[in-house]
Amino acid sequence: MRLRLMAIDFYFDFASPYGFIAAMQMPALTRPVRWHPFLLGAIYKAVAQSPLEHPLKRDYVINVDAPRTARRIGLELKMPQGFPEHSLPPARAFYWIEQRDPEAAVAFAEDVYRKYWLQGRSTADIEVVVDSAVAIGFARDAVLVGMQSRETKERLAAENEAALQRRVFGSPFFIVEGEPFWGSEQIPFLNAAG
Amino acid sequence: MRLRLMAIDFYFDFASPYGFIAAMQMPALTRPVRWHPFLLGAIYKAVAQSPLEHPLKRDYVINVDAPRTARRIGLELKMPQGFPEHSLPPARAFYWIEQRDPEAAVAFAEDVYRKYWLQGRSTADIEVVVDSAVAIGFARDAVLVGMQSRETKERLAAENEAALQRRVFGSPFFIVEGEPFWGSEQIPFLNAAG
Repeated sequence: MRLRLMAIDFYFDFASPYGFIAAMQMPALTRPVRWHPFLLGAIYKAVAQSPLEHPLKRDYVINVDAPRTARRIGLELKMPQGFPEHSLPPARAFYWIEQRDPEAAVAFAEDVYRKYWLQGRSTADIEVVVDSAVAIGFARDAVLVGMQSRETKERLAAENEAALQRRVFGSPFFIVEGEPFWGSEQIPFLNAAG
Repeated sequence: MRLRLMAIDFYFDFASPYGFIAAMQMPALTRPVRWHPFLLGAIYKAVAQSPLEHPLKRDYVINVDAPRTARRIGLELKMPQGFPEHSLPPARAFYWIEQRDPEAAVAFAEDVYRKYWLQGRSTADIEVVVDSAVAIGFARDAVLVGMQSRETKERLAAENEAALQRRVFGSPFFIVEGEPFWGSEQIPFLNAAG
């Protein structure tokens, strides 16, 4: 019984198309999922490179494979305005909300993710984040203040650091009982891992 | 009928574990496959980066994901001695053999690929290549001379250039009726592509 209850740690960047594609499939998993938004840029900064390092790879991901992979699960992708931009607002807001209501944080993550990748809203736009937080019951001013609080900033920094310590280098990235999985195509293997 | 007969262009580097994993699955495809060994290093040289750009990603690929992916299709991976080394000898030998006997070239590719990734032989070792060519009926001296001929070197250079022109940036990489697919996890989608 113990094995089946072990949680899946789900690492993702809100600015990652495959992170979005993975997020939409998390409800279908039988194991509990712990959501960990992080900033992929912080991981790659350490080695002075980019996750879309080759221009040909970048073009393939954006124009061919991410839209095609989304279509395979019935989603029509729309690139976020200004892509690629940072995703600091949703990552901070997630952890501020999670401190108050963990389930609401997941609902928030799913909602902003859809706005970025189905409606093409900017991942750097604070208004998108505030709208989603307000829609699930938080006060606009409280969200704005909370996102900028030292506690929230430190929490996100700690999560980025923890991701690096756990050897996370991409989005989506999963860890199940210590076993790492990178990429949305690994989702079918997560339930049985460990 | 025309669609079902369209060939799959299969690009791979002999020094690529996922290229090997893909090669072992090519016989199961219903479409004809055209094999194109190329040097991934030549593609990345243009942008002064590496396909295993992040040390964490490199470690994950080599120590976790490539062996695990191979195991899912019943293969026990053994890293080639000295990995990563270049794969100039098998790429050149492939095209020299292909000029003489296209079917023999595929048999040769499968044979050396197994020696690199199941027996751990070095991809830069000329002896491995010669042994495989001799085993399918070519004369040792003819292979050694043929691999160093201007014609063979120019053919491989032309194949590398053609791969870049067709926007190939990884191994394995497939093109079916103009549609690109990167990665061995795309193999289930190749028969129906186009």
